[in-house]
Amino acid sequence: MLDPRLQIPDGVAKSSVNYVVPFYDTDAMAIVHHANYVRYLELARVRFLQEHDQAYTLYVEQGFHVVVMRVDIQLKRPTRFDERLEVICWLERVRSASLAFGYQIRNGEFLTATGMTEHGVVNMQGKATRMPEARRIRLQSLLAP
Amino acid sequence: MLDPRLQIPDGVAKSSVNYVVPFYDTDAMAIVHHANYVRYLELARVRFLQEHDQAYTLYVEQGFHVVVMRVDIQLKRPTRFDERLEVICWLERVRSASLAFGYQIRNGEFLTATGMTEHGVVNMQGKATRMPEARRIRLQSLLAP
Amino acid sequence: MLDPRLQIPDGVAKSSVNYVVPFYDTDAMAIVHHANYVRYLELARVRFLQEHDQAYTLYVEQGFHVVVMRVDIQLKRPTRFDERLEVICWLERVRSASLAFGYQIRNGEFLTATGMTEHGVVNMQGKATRMPEARRIRLQSLLAP
Amino acid sequence: MLDPRLQIPDGVAKSSVNYVVPFYDTDAMAIVHHANYVRYLELARVRFLQEHDQAYTLYVEQGFHVVVMRVDIQLKRPTRFDERLEVICWLERVRSASLAFGYQIRNGEFLTATGMTEHGVVNMQGKATRMPEARRIRLQSLLAP
Repeated sequence: MLDPRLQIPDGVAKSSVNYVVPFYDTDAMAIVHHANYVRYLELARVRFLQEHDQAYTLYVEQGFHVVVMRVDIQLKRPTRFDERLEVICWLERVRSASLAFGYQIRNGEFLTATGMTEHGVVNMQGKATRMPEARRIRLQSLLAP
Repeated sequence: MLDPRLQIPDGVAKSSVNYVVPFYDTDAMAIVHHANYVRYLELARVRFLQEHDQAYTLYVEQGFHVVVMRVDIQLKRPTRFDERLEVICWLERVRSASLAFGYQIRNGEFLTATGMTEHGVVNMQGKATRMPEARRIRLQSLLAP
Repeated sequence: MLDPRLQIPDGVAKSSVNYVVPFYDTDAMAIVHHANYVRYLELARVRFLQEHDQAYTLYVEQGFHVVVMRVDIQLKRPTRFDERLEVICWLERVRSASLAFGYQIRNGEFLTATGMTEHGVVNMQGKATRMPEARRIRLQSLLAP
Repeated sequence: MLDPRLQIPDGVAKSSVNYVVPFYDTDAMAIVHHANYVRYLELARVRFLQEHDQAYTLYVEQGFHVVVMRVDIQLKRPTRFDERLEVICWLERVRSASLAFGYQIRNGEFLTATGMTEHGVVNMQGKATRMPEARRIRLQSLLAP
């Protein structure tokens, strides 16, 4: 099955963060341990919300968390200490109580990984809840046209 | 789409590890940060190879690594500090240069997460390679009948 | 200056945990990354409180946290993937609003590391506070005679 | 005993890195887990070598590693998600086979932590070794006058 994130959708809002790989992210194969890529996705997702919607701390102040319900990463090539990655994030789906993001991780001209995450909106007690209408409308405006 | 790992295949070889959640695995939502579940899968996979095939250190001595090419985790419910998880691992697919594992993470009677990982076999220079015939035959004998 | 934790004080209450080093704790030198030893100390400290005083979750229910104010680790030899460490913890000092622990990390017959941590007692707002009298008396009974 | 790193020595060469605290560095107390500060020191130390001596990857190419033998961190105040830390690093001591660094971690106008690390020079087999003369002379020129 073709990886649907080899192409970033035309016209979609996106954000990217640069990340120089620290020594502590490497493992005994001398490459980045795969669990760390999950963290890199979070960096880009937090940046996306901050740049296009609102800071994640505001979500929390407004009484809800956006929890991870699924994370799927496909690794194309290894990364080594001190290499500079670019992590690109965009919205793939927005519903009243859930959303999904797509990702590419690039290393110069090379594609290092693609990823997707699915999220549920929960209140401070961890119960699934709907996000405020204004929030959902704003997020839906960021999807690919 | 139904999560195909809600049921562990009948008759498949499996291994499980117990893991009491340390404080350092929690995040500011007071639950296990999702990136840590990727590590829990590794614990169970390493145990599986050791119990059913050979210790991972022997793979390395024989000149190859089993690298992660994909990890896909579906989180069903959160986990808190000091809770005891059981991580169950089984083989889903074995080819000459790749393999895939399925996982369940359970918390007492509850299903916490399901997962799958895909792996490539590489030599010490990181190049894709076939695993030795004996290895492949052994691993294939562990699949669901 | 002689490392004061080369000898565990006679007659002191102590706890130990076993920890088999997972692959994800290694770095590109193929040894355990030093930041992970700080986590190993926490495992032994949590075990110590549970075995000799009360579970850390009870401290939290009673309205206080024991926060880390200092951590000092001396590394004697490296540790590799799949090696089994024993982390030993004992109390070094107990005051009404602070306490200190000593540690040894052993690998079979070898001493891998020694450590110490200092802690302050804080309430749920993060303010320094005294621990309940009963708590302090119990903890002081665990010191070396 | 007064913390000797409350003041950065006059005239010493130093480097600093900025680090915005990611969500994954927080713990269930909603503050940065203390083990992560050890990693922040590494970021600043790697930057120091790169800016004032040579990139750490060059050390490795020249056949040696600079391993951590001690890490001592004093935490003054907690840090929360999304706060911006500045990690400042300087050399405290240089001998032919060992060196030591001092650190401050600052959060705006506040001192968050101080730290020190001691290091040994080892070859690719992990044996203690002397660093090349040119390296030692260069590093000693960076000490406080």
